[in-house]
Amino acid sequence: MKITIIGFGVVGRGLAKVLYKKKDELEKNYGEFRVVAICDRSGAIIDEDGVDLKEAIEVKEKTGKLINHKKAKKVDVLDVIRNVKSDVVVEVTPSNLETGEPAKTYILESFKNKKHVVTANKGPLALYYKELVEEAKKNNVYFRYEATVGGAMPIINLAKENLAGNKILAIRGILNGTTNYILTKMEKEKVDFETALKEAQELGYAEANPSQDVDGLDTAAKIVILANSIMNLNKTIKDVKIKGIRKITPEALFLANKRGYTIKLIGEIKEGYLIVEPMLVPIESPLNVKGTLNVAMFETDLAKEVVVVGRGAGAEETASAILSDLIWIKKRLS
Amino acid sequence: MKITIIGFGVVGRGLAKVLYKKKDELEKNYGEFRVVAICDRSGAIIDEDGVDLKEAIEVKEKTGKLINHKKAKKVDVLDVIRNVKSDVVVEVTPSNLETGEPAKTYILESFKNKKHVVTANKGPLALYYKELVEEAKKNNVYFRYEATVGGAMPIINLAKENLAGNKILAIRGILNGTTNYILTKMEKEKVDFETALKEAQELGYAEANPSQDVDGLDTAAKIVILANSIMNLNKTIKDVKIKGIRKITPEALFLANKRGYTIKLIGEIKEGYLIVEPMLVPIESPLNVKGTLNVAMFETDLAKEVVVVGRGAGAEETASAILSDLIWIKKRLS
Repeated sequence: MKITIIGFGVVGRGLAKVLYKKKDELEKNYGEFRVVAICDRSGAIIDEDGVDLKEAIEVKEKTGKLINHKKAKKVDVLDVIRNVKSDVVVEVTPSNLETGEPAKTYILESFKNKKHVVTANKGPLALYYKELVEEAKKNNVYFRYEATVGGAMPIINLAKENLAGNKILAIRGILNGTTNYILTKMEKEKVDFETALKEAQELGYAEANPSQDVDGLDTAAKIVILANSIMNLNKTIKDVKIKGIRKITPEALFLANKRGYTIKLIGEIKEGYLIVEPMLVPIESPLNVKGTLNVAMFETDLAKEVVVVGRGAGAEETASAILSDLIWIKKRLS
Repeated sequence: MKITIIGFGVVGRGLAKVLYKKKDELEKNYGEFRVVAICDRSGAIIDEDGVDLKEAIEVKEKTGKLINHKKAKKVDVLDVIRNVKSDVVVEVTPSNLETGEPAKTYILESFKNKKHVVTANKGPLALYYKELVEEAKKNNVYFRYEATVGGAMPIINLAKENLAGNKILAIRGILNGTTNYILTKMEKEKVDFETALKEAQELGYAEANPSQDVDGLDTAAKIVILANSIMNLNKTIKDVKIKGIRKITPEALFLANKRGYTIKLIGEIKEGYLIVEPMLVPIESPLNVKGTLNVAMFETDLAKEVVVVGRGAGAEETASAILSDLIWIKKRLS
C-alpha cells in the first residue's frame, strides 16, 4: 500500500516514526506500508521506492523544514495529491476549527483522485462532515478518522463496528485532556484555575493560548464528529451549547466532593442535543478518570453502558489510531 | 444470511429476541438475518423461510422444551448442522470448562460443513483454542467469539481490530461480575464473604454452586481466551495460577481502603504468565469499577493504556456481542 503523508508536524512525524520502527512487524502481519511522498508547507520528498523516513524525520527536526532535504522539491501539495501514485493520503496538517482549511481542500482533492483518506484533523469533519462523507462515497474510496477524537482511545470505530447492531442512545465523555488535567489538579491540590492552567502550560499539556481547550471548543468539535459519524446526525459546531471551565473554583470542587461528586468538562450528545459544560460526575462513576486521560461512555439499547478510557493526545498515541485505520484499509485492498 | 442457533437457553433466546425486535432495523442497515433452525436438547425447529422467533421463544419459555412446538422434530443436532442450509451456526449451549463438550463437536462439525461459527461458549475456546482456529482456517470459514469474554464489553475484537498495529504487552481486568459484586458489597457494607455471596445468590448474580466464579475458574477461562486470541500464545486453563476470593475479609478491604487501594479479583496476562488472584488496585485506577461491571486494561506500545468497561453478563448484553460478530460476517459475505 502506497501512502502520501500531508503535514509533517508532531502527528505526521509520529506516524513516520512508528512506520519506520515497526516496518518488519507490520510487513509480516499485514504487508507493506510504503510512504511514497511527504509534504510540509515548505516542500515535498517524493520517492516511489519509498521515502527514507529516518532521514526525513531528521531533516525536519533539525531544520524545521522538509525543503532542506537533499531530495526535496518545492511543489504544491495539490500537485502531489494529483500526480504521485499512492493508494492512501494521510492528512495531518494543523486543525483549523474556523475554516477547516487547508485540510478540507486536500481531502476533497484526494477523493477526486480516487485516493482513500485517513485524517487526524478535527476541523474539516466538525464543519463539513456530510459533504466529505458523501464525496468519499461518490468516489468509492474509504474515509477513516479515528484519530480525530480521543487520540489513541478507540471510539468512532468502536461504536460503529464493535457495537454494531446497538442503537446508540447517548454519548458523554471527557474528550479534552487539558481540562481534565486542570480540574484534577484543582481538586487534589486545592489550587485555583489560573495556577493549575499555568502548570499545565509549563508541562506542555496546555497551549500558550489555551482558549480552544478551556473554553470548550475542542470538546465541541469532537462531539460534533461523534454525533454525525456515530449517531447519524447532521450537526456543526454552531449547534453545540458550549461552556468552559474558567469559572470553576477549588471551593466548588471541594463541595462537590463532600456530596460524593466531582466536576468534569463533559461533552454530551443526547436526544439530538449537543452540550459541552462542566458537569457533576459521581466519584464512583467510570467517567471519573484523572489527569490527562480521556473517557467516553456510550448508552446503548443492548449492551447498555460501555465505557472506554485512553490517552487523548501524544504523537505515538495519535499514530496508533491512524495506523489502525491504515491497517483497516489495507485489509480491504488485498 | 441464514443462521442456525444451537442452544436455546438464556443466551440463545436473548439473541432470538433481539433478532425479532430489531428485524426491520437490521434489515435496513445490513440485510436479512434469517434464523432457519433452532435446536435445544429436546429437538429442533427448522424452517428455510425463517423460523417464527416469537412463537419459538414462547414455547420454550412456557414449557421448557422446543419439542413442544408444533413444527418441532426430534433430530440430532449434528444432523441439523450437516443438513440444514445455513451460512452461520451460532453455538450457545452451556459452557463446560472440563471437556468443552458438546460445543466443541458442534463447532468442528460446522467448520467441516463450511459454516461460519459465532459462539458465546468459553469451554471449547479455553481448552482447544488452537485446534479450533486452525480447523476454521483450513475450512476457510470465519470463527468469531466476542461474547465469550466480558459479555457486552468490547474486548477481543477491540484488541485485534481497533488496536491493530499495537503490540499488546499486558492485559489485566475484572472479567467476572459475580466476584466484583461480592467484593463491592463487602467493601461498602463491611459484611463478610458468606453474607455478600448469599445476597448475590438471592439477586441471581451468583449460582447455587458459586465455585466457578468465586474460586476464579471462570476468570481463568477468559484470560486463556484473551492470551491465545489477542497475544498469540498457546495456553490452556492448566497454565493459569488461580486463587479465588473466599479468604478476603471486610477488614482486609478496610485496611486496603485506608492506604488508598481496593481489592479486586484480577485476571492478568503478562510476560507469558497467566494469573488470577485478588490484587490491590489503587482507588483512583480505572480498574476500580463497582457492582457487577467488568473492566479490562490493555497495556500497549503505541496507545499505552486503554481501558474498557461494560456489562459482563445478561441476555441482551451477550446478544449484543453475538450480533456484532454476525454483522461482521454479514458484511464480508455480501
